[in-house]
Amino acid sequence: MYIGIDLGGTNIAVGCTDDNGKLLSKASLPTISGRGYKEIVKDMASLCEKVTSDASADMSKIKAIGIGSPGTIDSDNGVVVYAGNLRMEKAPMARELRKYFDVPVFMENDANAAAYGEYTACGHDVSSFVFITLGTGVGGGIIIDNKIYRGFNGAGAEIGHMTLRMNGIRCTCGKRGCFERYASVTALRRMTERAIKENPSSKMCEWVRQRGHVSGRTAFECAAEGDEAAIRTRDKYIRCVAEGILSVVNVFQPEILVIGGGISKEGDVLLKPIKEFVLKRDFNKFMPKTDIRIAKLFNDAGIVGAAMSAKLRLTK
Amino acid sequence: MYIGIDLGGTNIAVGCTDDNGKLLSKASLPTISGRGYKEIVKDMASLCEKVTSDASADMSKIKAIGIGSPGTIDSDNGVVVYAGNLRMEKAPMARELRKYFDVPVFMENDANAAAYGEYTACGHDVSSFVFITLGTGVGGGIIIDNKIYRGFNGAGAEIGHMTLRMNGIRCTCGKRGCFERYASVTALRRMTERAIKENPSSKMCEWVRQRGHVSGRTAFECAAEGDEAAIRTRDKYIRCVAEGILSVVNVFQPEILVIGGGISKEGDVLLKPIKEFVLKRDFNKFMPKTDIRIAKLFNDAGIVGAAMSAKLRLTK
Repeated sequence: MYIGIDLGGTNIAVGCTDDNGKLLSKASLPTISGRGYKEIVKDMASLCEKVTSDASADMSKIKAIGIGSPGTIDSDNGVVVYAGNLRMEKAPMARELRKYFDVPVFMENDANAAAYGEYTACGHDVSSFVFITLGTGVGGGIIIDNKIYRGFNGAGAEIGHMTLRMNGIRCTCGKRGCFERYASVTALRRMTERAIKENPSSKMCEWVRQRGHVSGRTAFECAAEGDEAAIRTRDKYIRCVAEGILSVVNVFQPEILVIGGGISKEGDVLLKPIKEFVLKRDFNKFMPKTDIRIAKLFNDAGIVGAAMSAKLRLTK
Repeated sequence: MYIGIDLGGTNIAVGCTDDNGKLLSKASLPTISGRGYKEIVKDMASLCEKVTSDASADMSKIKAIGIGSPGTIDSDNGVVVYAGNLRMEKAPMARELRKYFDVPVFMENDANAAAYGEYTACGHDVSSFVFITLGTGVGGGIIIDNKIYRGFNGAGAEIGHMTLRMNGIRCTCGKRGCFERYASVTALRRMTERAIKENPSSKMCEWVRQRGHVSGRTAFECAAEGDEAAIRTRDKYIRCVAEGILSVVNVFQPEILVIGGGISKEGDVLLKPIKEFVLKRDFNKFMPKTDIRIAKLFNDAGIVGAAMSAKLRLTK
């Protein structure tokens, strides 16, 4: 058995899995970011005990614990080098958690962990795999030959910060025109807000009046009801996602590319036009094509991936 | 000893290397593309014998032959699946060359081979390496853990066909806004031609009148002489190259990134602003930075890389 910990800005989610990554139990506590890492690890430890006992086991059965954390991670040493939204710097989290349990603890960047989770859910016989998550930002994870690709310094796979439009919208990273600025939920909300202003008779206006806010679902739901402005907004957004995925396919030609994050729950409405756009235009006219899919694990990808990447580290 | 063959649209260049990739001899013949692959392989065979005897050896000393070819290559089977500029389809070149010599023959895409050549020239202790060549197009090669990364179908590493400007200039590949359309010599010539039209008093006009044509050197040479319009053109071009490299760094965070192709001979004039732009903006504020360099082998990279990738295949 393994434990996976998905440390987020809002929640600490912990799960216990069997040796194949099947989730047996899970539990969570609020992160309350801004606390010192020792306080957070204390909560992680109590969640580890809870999920283990919920899975009718005890800590002696746990072979390794994996932690997925946002930010820049030194995975060799189990340290959060820097995580802005956790207000954390140089936090030796793995070492701290080892104070509670005599079990190997490994750390991974959260997007890499989620990617590895989705990868294990696709089976282990895939030579190249890319995961793109459409959330507040756009995250990425790359698995090559059953190894998480991190770059030489651990900071790689930042697919959301490929340029999609040179001199385009300014990104939180400081540069302009990042894929993330056109393909995140944040971007979809921006496009939706603009469309609402320009189309005051759109169904989207009523949608927002009823709920009090614009969300990533506004355009998709109103488009499904046939609203013209919503259809245009949705299609414009999907086109941006597809453009970025096309770049990724031309560079990686991965065997499988999985789209995750909240918006991926739209399923075929999102997937079909992306596949059509990408597979018609990719720089590969004669060889088999990348299999583009929607994520399977969704919110559990981080937990399962943290657990399974710990297993991988243990056995290599 | 190994033999490397760099099959281009214009020339077949063949070289003999020692076991460490040191080039001992080289020779070439015109490709005369449009000929059947058997004719081309016949010339390859005579060049193999020539370079081997020029290196004071005979074919019995050759451990393997590598062929780098443009187009889509099935490297498992040594077949050119499709190469537009060679007007070649489903050509089983490796098998054909084996008719001449009882030596293992391996095939590789030409950009991958050149990347592997530059990689070996950087030493073998680099975990991740990206090569970008600025020529008629923009080619790429990716080496991860001493393996050429090709994607699952062999068609990967098409870095020139990442989108740099969504809905931008139409590319020969059919999509729009590819990195290649802004960073190739072709792009630089286009920018130079436009600048000449808009600045009839620029030194570039005189440069072109003397030589009868615009080249990739026009803007760089006139900029070195202080011509304002040339400086703007050169800097605009370098900025486009840097933008694409920044995307590559954010995705790969490679230990070394090498810039090759004709324009890379500009050296520091090209390299310094690229490094400054990329290393200030990349999504990595706390970890060591990618080492961005100019190519070492230039035109020999294809030969050396084909030879050394054959060595790699032989030993794996």
